Parts: sequence; C-alpha cells; structure tokens
Amino acid sequence: MSDSSPNEGLSKTRIEALADGIFAIAMTLMVFDIKLPVPTQTMPWSLRYELVRLWPRFLAYVISFIMLGVYWVGHHNQYHYIRRTDRGFLWINIFFLMGVSLLPFSTGLLGQYPAERTALVVYGLNLIMVGGFLYTHWWYATRSHRLVESQMNPEVVSLAKHRIAMGPAVSILAICVSLVGKRLSLAIFALIPLLYLIPGRLDYHWLNPRERHSKKEPSNSDS
Amino acid sequence: MSDSSPNEGLSKTRIEALADGIFAIAMTLMVFDIKLPVPTQTMPWSLRYELVRLWPRFLAYVISFIMLGVYWVGHHNQYHYIRRTDRGFLWINIFFLMGVSLLPFSTGLLGQYPAERTALVVYGLNLIMVGGFLYTHWWYATRSHRLVESQMNPEVVSLAKHRIAMGPAVSILAICVSLVGKRLSLAIFALIPLLYLIPGRLDYHWLNPRERHSKKEPSNSDS
Amino acid sequence: MSDSSPNEGLSKTRIEALADGIFAIAMTLMVFDIKLPVPTQTMPWSLRYELVRLWPRFLAYVISFIMLGVYWVGHHNQYHYIRRTDRGFLWINIFFLMGVSLLPFSTGLLGQYPAERTALVVYGLNLIMVGGFLYTHWWYATRSHRLVESQMNPEVVSLAKHRIAMGPAVSILAICVSLVGKRLSLAIFALIPLLYLIPGRLDYHWLNPRERHSKKEPSNSDS
Amino acid sequence: MSDSSPNEGLSKTRIEALADGIFAIAMTLMVFDIKLPVPTQTMPWSLRYELVRLWPRFLAYVISFIMLGVYWVGHHNQYHYIRRTDRGFLWINIFFLMGVSLLPFSTGLLGQYPAERTALVVYGLNLIMVGGFLYTHWWYATRSHRLVESQMNPEVVSLAKHRIAMGPAVSILAICVSLVGKRLSLAIFALIPLLYLIPGRLDYHWLNPRERHSKKEPSNSDS
Repeated sequence: MSDSSPNEGLSKTRIEALADGIFAIAMTLMVFDIKLPVPTQTMPWSLRYELVRLWPRFLAYVISFIMLGVYWVGHHNQYHYIRRTDRGFLWINIFFLMGVSLLPFSTGLLGQYPAERTALVVYGLNLIMVGGFLYTHWWYATRSHRLVESQMNPEVVSLAKHRIAMGPAVSILAICVSLVGKRLSLAIFALIPLLYLIPGRLDYHWLNPRERHSKKEPSNSDS
Repeated sequence: MSDSSPNEGLSKTRIEALADGIFAIAMTLMVFDIKLPVPTQTMPWSLRYELVRLWPRFLAYVISFIMLGVYWVGHHNQYHYIRRTDRGFLWINIFFLMGVSLLPFSTGLLGQYPAERTALVVYGLNLIMVGGFLYTHWWYATRSHRLVESQMNPEVVSLAKHRIAMGPAVSILAICVSLVGKRLSLAIFALIPLLYLIPGRLDYHWLNPRERHSKKEPSNSDS
Repeated sequence: MSDSSPNEGLSKTRIEALADGIFAIAMTLMVFDIKLPVPTQTMPWSLRYELVRLWPRFLAYVISFIMLGVYWVGHHNQYHYIRRTDRGFLWINIFFLMGVSLLPFSTGLLGQYPAERTALVVYGLNLIMVGGFLYTHWWYATRSHRLVESQMNPEVVSLAKHRIAMGPAVSILAICVSLVGKRLSLAIFALIPLLYLIPGRLDYHWLNPRERHSKKEPSNSDS
Repeated sequence: MSDSSPNEGLSKTRIEALADGIFAIAMTLMVFDIKLPVPTQTMPWSLRYELVRLWPRFLAYVISFIMLGVYWVGHHNQYHYIRRTDRGFLWINIFFLMGVSLLPFSTGLLGQYPAERTALVVYGLNLIMVGGFLYTHWWYATRSHRLVESQMNPEVVSLAKHRIAMGPAVSILAICVSLVGKRLSLAIFALIPLLYLIPGRLDYHWLNPRERHSKKEPSNSDS
C-alpha cells in the first residue's frame, strides 16, 4: 500500500498491524483464565456466590484492559504523525510490545496480592518499562524529524513527550510511596488511567489539519 | 494510509484493526476449552458417546459465535459511515470491546446453567453492556456530524439507532421475564440473533451510494 | 480506506481482517496444547524419547496447518475478485469462519483416533461444512455479479467453483469409504491438501490482468 | 485495496495480515503459560521468591520474543520490495509461518533443558527451518523478478540473501559444536539475535528511494 508511494524508508502499516494484534491478545489474555464455576457436591452451592468469588479476577481484567487501552491510544496517536520506519524504530516497537504483553501478568499479580510490596514494585516496573519505551519511541521518531514530516509542529512533539512521561513519573512516585504506605501507593497507581482518559491540549492538534500540512496550506489563502 | 489524506482527526484503520483482532479472539476463545476426549480404562468407552457429551459446549460455542457475529456486523456497519476518530470515541470503543470479550464467558455460563436465574441475568447484563456501548458509539459519532460526513442522510442515523436499540431492549425484557419463567426468558434471548440476521431497511442505504455522497451526485443527473 | 471510494455496498477490508485473525488463531491453536515435557523421577527419563512421544501431536498440527492454509488461500483468491459486501455475504463468512475454527479440534480428533470411524466422519463433516460455506460464498458473490465486477470473466467463476467443490466431494467419498476400510478412507483424506497445493488453470487468470479489467484494455491495442 | 490497481497477480495485503496475526500470537504464546504464583500453606511463603523461581520462563519468553522479532523484521523487509503474490509464494509463506509458531516451543525447551543436546538440536533445527523458508521466500520472489519490480536493484537482492543466510549458517555451526561443548553451542545461538539487531548495508537502500524507483528518477536530474 504505502510501499508504492515514493516515500523513503519502510512503510508503517506492518508494525501497526503487529501492534494491534499483540494489544488485542494482551487485552483478552486474562479472560482465558476466568473459568466457568463448577458445581461441587459436598456443600450447599450457589452460582451467585461462585461468581462473586471471581470478582477480583474481573476487577484485574478491567484494570488491565483500561491500562492497555491507555498505551494503545498513546501508540496510535504517535503513528498519526509518523510517516516511515527504520530498523531501530521497529526494534523499539518490539521491546515496547514485549512490555505490553507482560501487563496482564503484573496486573493480575497486583490484583491477587494488593497488600504485597513486591506486587506493587513489579506492577510499577512494568508501567515504567512500557511508558519508557513509548517515550523512546516518540523521541527516536521526532529527533531531527527522522520519521515524521519535516514541517511538523514542534509544540505537538513536546506536548506528546510530557503526556507520555506522566505515566512512568507517577509510577516511580508510587513505588517510592510503597515503602511508606501500600494503600497510598495503590491509590497513586489508580490515578494513572484517569490522567490519560482526560483529553489534553494535544487533542486539539488532531482536529486541526493545518498543523500537519502547513505546506499545502497556502493554496487556501490566495485570492 | 488514510493518515496521509487531508482529513481532520485520527484515522479509523487502527481502531478497526484492534476491534477485528479482539472479535477474532473472542469468537475462537471457547474452542480453546473444547478438549479432545481422553480414553478411560475403567468402563466401556465410546468416542461417539464422549463427543455427544461435549454437545452443550458446542452449542454454547455456536451461540457465542453468532452473537459476536451480530455485534461485529453492527460495528462494521457503523464504520461504513465514520470518517475519523477522537479520544472519546476510541475509549467508547475500548469499553465496547471489553464487553465483547466477556461474551464467551457469559454465554458459556448460560449454556452450562440454563435453569439458573443468575446465568440469565449475567448474560442479559452482558448483552445490555455491549449493545449500550454500541449505541453510545453511534450516538457519539453522529451527534452534530462529529465523526461522519456533514451531508450524511439523517434517516440512516435514526434507522441504525433503532436497529442497535433492539438488542438491549429485548435483553431487559428477557431479564424481567426470567422472574416469572426461565424457559420463556431463554426463548426471548434466542430471538435476538434472529432479529439481527434479517436484513432491514438500513441495508438498502449501503447499496445506494448517493445517500452518502450527495455532493458527487449532480454529474449523474445531467441530460 | 476503500470506504471513501464511490463504490456501492460495504467495504471488504473488515471481513478480510476478521478472517485473517481467525485463521491465524486457528492455525496456532494446537501449539497451545503441545506442552513442554516434564522430567519424572520414577524411571530413567530421556528428553529425546519424550519428544518422540509428542510426535502424533506435531503431525496433527502440521496437517491442521496445511488444511487451514488450503482454505485461507481459497478465501483469499475469492476476495481477489470481490469488490463489496452485504449483510448476507458477511453472515456466510461468519459461518465459514465458525467451521474453520473447529478444524483444529476435528484434526486433533483424527490424529488421536485414526482407527475410529467416528473420528473419520467428524473430520469429513467438518471439511464438508467449511468447503460448503466457501462454495456458497463464491456462488452468492458471483450470482448475477452481485458483489464482483460486471465485466468479470465467467470462466473464472466456473473454474473456481469446480476447484472449491473438489474438497467436499472427496470428503463425501472418504466418509462413504470409511464404512468399508478405514485406512483407505484416511488415504483419501490425505489426498485433499495435495489436490489444492497443485496450481490449476485458475492461477493463470491472476497473472493476466486483462481478464479482470477488460474495459481498460482497448488503450493497449491502438496504433 | 491494491486489488483495484491494475497490477498482475494477487495482492500482498492478505498474506501480510495473516503473518502479522501469527507473529502476534507466537510472540505472546509463552505468556499464557506464566501463571500467577499460588500461596502454599505448608511452608514459609514469599512472593518475591516465587517470582524469582519463574525467572527461567521470563528469560525464555524474552529470547523467544526477540528471535520472533528478528524474523518478523526480516519478513517485513522482504515485503518492502514484493509487489504481488502467487500460489507458490503463499504456500512458502504458510510453511514459514508454521516454523514461526513452533519457535515458542523450541525456545521453551532450550530454556528448560539448556544442558541437553536434544534441546540444542531441536532449537537449531527450528531456526534452520524458519531461516530456510525465509531464504526460499526471497529467492522465489526475486528470481527473474517474478514478484518484485523489474527495475529492482540486484545488489539489494544479494545483500538480503546474505543477511538471511547468516541465521541458518550459524545454527548449523551451533548444532555441530553441541557435539563438542554444550556451553559453546549456547553461546553461538546467543549470537544470532545480536547479528540481526545491528543495521547492515541493506538498511541504507530503504532510505534511498531511487534504488527502487529508478524509472521515476530522471525528472529529478533535469536543469
């Protein structure tokens, strides 16, 4: 498709497709482990009670789905501006996706052991890894306009950098706080998805195509 | 791909790819649990009998596949008209997909416990969740032509709204009926896929491109 | 993407993406069940011997992968000619994909119980189901050029029909033969992938674009 | 999409989508087997210790992810130059993907039994199979410009051939060395991903579009 266009570098459609596939699997991975309750004969059995017992798994599933949603939206947004790829960029993506596919594990760990500092640290390290690779991803693509359009708005570059950096920064804070209070640490982790669900200044740039195609603009202003 | 076109907003191909991946996994998820029968030594063993015993699992698989098919077709149809996406829309999608990936669980629950009111209610709530997000999805995209073409036919908007609303409406009815009779409730749930398999007035609009591209039409009307 | 083109009907990219996702899962589904051998302490243990014991699973995996490859190639070839979709066509696809995702189960069953007539019949019925829906798929799309180009070569339509019909026909034969001899029935099933691996007359039409675009041809013949 | 262009042969988007789906599943397959640690009552239990015990599984996961990344990047690079497909090419792809989806198994085997020659040989044979099909893939596509552009730079063809051949060549060496020393054999296997992570001369050709579109070049040289 975009291969046939006269752009330089490798096309981006393949890495987008691989990422979407891995996100789809990671998002649904925890449902594979939610097994149907099996009736037991020894004691009075209630389906409603069995489903309530599965509650922590559903909660971990929902949190994992939302966090993966946050990173998927972030990844998608970056590709809005990226025009081509190269070997280094593909590998940053692959390491990012490796972190992404470990998120169901670390979220499940936190869901099952919310009072264990180890679980808080593992979850935080996973978020730092994923957010860190997403930051590197953006930095690599935008440094001297390597993989983006040459006329790209520098404000978008730095707005996106700040937005991505929030996640790892808050995770580092939550890990440090876990030494003092585990409940507070959990509360700080719970803030992260909320921070990303709120639209930021970056979103207005998507709706304004002129930011991206400043070269094509002049034709609108004649006469 | 469509990124390079001068449209405003984020492209829709990524969210379509993520949705298709999650639907593909949800549709096949129940096959992972249909294990090959293992011969037992203690009693006379028959492969045919063992396969017949797996019958409820196959039935639940077929129902789950068809219900997911219904929602996939509905999702696909909406994107026929959608031209771009924004952050809010991506998140409505992500919550819709979360409901979609729980359908194999709730369908399996109903398949295994068809006489339990809890199973009927859980299945109904899942259908209401999925249908409700699909409705919100359409409402969000079409309200003041936010993400669709400005010349879009308003009849298509309302026909699609009615069609989507059928599922949650019938599910609410089935949940209420489950208080009176569980068999009747099951029968009402069985109606839902049939309602959606039948082509509606909406389908004629797909085949008539003029509805969508009224601007390009005039050239056909000369002479 | 193709949505923005002035074609009538729904685009085909979504159903292709869903099909590719389900094929990818069905193809790899059996690897999920090939578990690493675990050392036992009670008797002399050899990794080589343990791997040899896994041999029937690997064989069933290879056969299942190849049969799914056959149907994927067949599905792909049809979409080479298909230009748009409608509700009926999407549902034929969904039932086809339901059969596809059961293939790993029926192949695994045949691999584990090659001497059981039940396994031969189940495998045969699965192939008839998948092949039958693929035939219906093609018939539905090409009947009075419903979803293909109006100038499509009728020879391609009938060549493809014959090629698709081979699979179900040979499966019916193999099921009938299983009443007489199970080994002969197995041998007939083994023929099916070979029949489809061999390129047929149909393939030459892909390489000759004139067959498809007869309208655009005249420009080549001037002067 | 590219179906509608007047190119000869089948489009390449479907096989790319199938490959991306299978790679996404193979890459994440090993996470399905990393189960959350379950507390035991009999002895002092530590979550940190339980996670450390999972370490070999994480390592095998990381190695498998990176090796699959190597082959995915290699596959992607080839399609940069490939313009169309045919039946033979689709089947080479399908056999390549069969090898790809076995990589998590053979890597897991090596991770669990690094001191067993059988594990070293199985891993090496898997790498030879995958690399061998990738080489055949490229050879088939480029021989007398079967599936690539007629004006394609022959240097790119041979550079890519050499790069692909490294993997199987080093694997054969590692298998032979395993007869003498198992640790040395492991070290040689560890070299393979490093060899592919380093950008080669091939990469410069991606950044220089003239290599591929020499026909479109003259317009740049006037005046």
